[in-house]
Amino acid sequence: MSRRPLIGVMGAGEGASSAAIQLAEELGAAITERCWALLSGGRPEGVMAAVSRGACSVEGHLVVGVLPGGGQGQGRQHTAELDLALFTGMGQARNLINVLSADVVVVCGGGGAGTASEAAHAIKAKRPVILLAVPPLWREFFCSLSAEVQSANDVADCCALIVARLNET
Amino acid sequence: MSRRPLIGVMGAGEGASSAAIQLAEELGAAITERCWALLSGGRPEGVMAAVSRGACSVEGHLVVGVLPGGGQGQGRQHTAELDLALFTGMGQARNLINVLSADVVVVCGGGGAGTASEAAHAIKAKRPVILLAVPPLWREFFCSLSAEVQSANDVADCCALIVARLNET
Amino acid sequence: MSRRPLIGVMGAGEGASSAAIQLAEELGAAITERCWALLSGGRPEGVMAAVSRGACSVEGHLVVGVLPGGGQGQGRQHTAELDLALFTGMGQARNLINVLSADVVVVCGGGGAGTASEAAHAIKAKRPVILLAVPPLWREFFCSLSAEVQSANDVADCCALIVARLNET
Amino acid sequence: MSRRPLIGVMGAGEGASSAAIQLAEELGAAITERCWALLSGGRPEGVMAAVSRGACSVEGHLVVGVLPGGGQGQGRQHTAELDLALFTGMGQARNLINVLSADVVVVCGGGGAGTASEAAHAIKAKRPVILLAVPPLWREFFCSLSAEVQSANDVADCCALIVARLNET
Repeated sequence: MSRRPLIGVMGAGEGASSAAIQLAEELGAAITERCWALLSGGRPEGVMAAVSRGACSVEGHLVVGVLPGGGQGQGRQHTAELDLALFTGMGQARNLINVLSADVVVVCGGGGAGTASEAAHAIKAKRPVILLAVPPLWREFFCSLSAEVQSANDVADCCALIVARLNET
Repeated sequence: MSRRPLIGVMGAGEGASSAAIQLAEELGAAITERCWALLSGGRPEGVMAAVSRGACSVEGHLVVGVLPGGGQGQGRQHTAELDLALFTGMGQARNLINVLSADVVVVCGGGGAGTASEAAHAIKAKRPVILLAVPPLWREFFCSLSAEVQSANDVADCCALIVARLNET
Repeated sequence: MSRRPLIGVMGAGEGASSAAIQLAEELGAAITERCWALLSGGRPEGVMAAVSRGACSVEGHLVVGVLPGGGQGQGRQHTAELDLALFTGMGQARNLINVLSADVVVVCGGGGAGTASEAAHAIKAKRPVILLAVPPLWREFFCSLSAEVQSANDVADCCALIVARLNET
Repeated sequence: MSRRPLIGVMGAGEGASSAAIQLAEELGAAITERCWALLSGGRPEGVMAAVSRGACSVEGHLVVGVLPGGGQGQGRQHTAELDLALFTGMGQARNLINVLSADVVVVCGGGGAGTASEAAHAIKAKRPVILLAVPPLWREFFCSLSAEVQSANDVADCCALIVARLNET
């Protein structure tokens, strides 16, 4: 039995731009089409929600959310469009689990400080990182931290880079 | 879209008895037969391995392992019979994630201190806990911590209790 | 420069018995008298509060609390009688940090499931564990997990055991 | 009883520049001189080691290290110049504890991806962040994440900003 590759997609929650949301939805669909599984921060907002929605729009999806909360009460239900919800109860420390678990980490459209922490943790842990349509300052900063970080402008480019990184491992 | 219930099965690693291993394998198969997803500590030993193996022996399985390691190098591969491997890099702190994420926690056949920490965390977090064929001292101790803890002697009893707990939520 | 030994004291929060609270206060004072530093779960309740209060009643104390919360807002202030407050934002996962950090772990007067998880994690991590005036069922259960677990009936006995364990390391 | 303010200093480990190391040592001394306590990542390398060494060079120091390892075996000893060593066993997740626990977070001289994750987590958690002598790209990036981030060029400036931030809380 071999596992499906697990692609982590990180990005803004509440403050996500409509461009980032559209891109995330497209990326999510592309991930399921290629029979990859999707991992995100799992909250029902912004890029996390959009990428899950996109992945679930294609048959055969496997969509995982790793959540900051402990899954008590309401928090357990409010995570539609996840095939699996992992509740960590560890707040932002779950960001580290996201990037360690993903075979490839895609940072979609930039984001806030939470997304930046995920990109930094991924680089520190030597996970493959692809920056998809991030602001120039994000690209400049994260590429300065590691020569291994790659950039893509659209979903097709991004998926080609993912394929290449998966073939390495 | 509704998620499949996620059943967490905790138990001994290296030191598991052959009775516990046989029970875990049977329980794993029963979990997939009922269309539930399985979560375990994911390491390729003892109850963790057996319950995953059992679950994977039935078609339509969804088997998740939440691992203590960070998924670097070899550690990434050595987790056969998982549909999804979550790497936490947090050592025993991953025990907490196991019990918070599971809709029902089954402690299969007792175990060592790691398993005991999972039972204790599950009770603290008010997750439903079922003790399956644990030693009398385990039953006495954990039932003293919470009147909600339930016991089962075999897999059929255990699954009936799981159904009842899932219907409550 | 050599560090002061760090003694972790675990026990009940809200539900602590008055006997456990009195014992914890006495133990805290004894810890500072011997120039050891104290570590506890840091919340202003039960055994955690009492052991800190006791330790602070003697000059030269060094009292550390490792807290489940993230230190936002009010939570930052409500931890009197700590020389140092470490905010983890990781909920019960902080229990693991408590026992890994302590040179010796004392379980004072039993407790609830949270305290049980700390005793179990300490045994799993092979930290020295001393059960101080715990219920017979606690002693029986944790001694069944490891032959290294020791018991004490009063603070003087407990401190003698701590001295012996510190001399081993 | 009131706690001493706890200043977190983050920076490069093995790859630290000699300028960053010198600055860290000076900052450490300044922290103890002002009766503040120091928190760092605690490993015996780079900025972590230098800031601890500086703080310990002045009488009355209180120097805390929050370590990625679990404190087993050798790892327990190799942390000279710490008054308190907290072992988390959680790898890079300890970065989050560092920034949540600090009353003010100073990023000293830039660093690698680990330091970047700490700056990002601190901003996300709304802790006060001061960038001390970081590269222009670091300043530009982190100031783009939050208008609250401040910069200092030398230790005197940095301490003046710390005083101002402590007075706010």
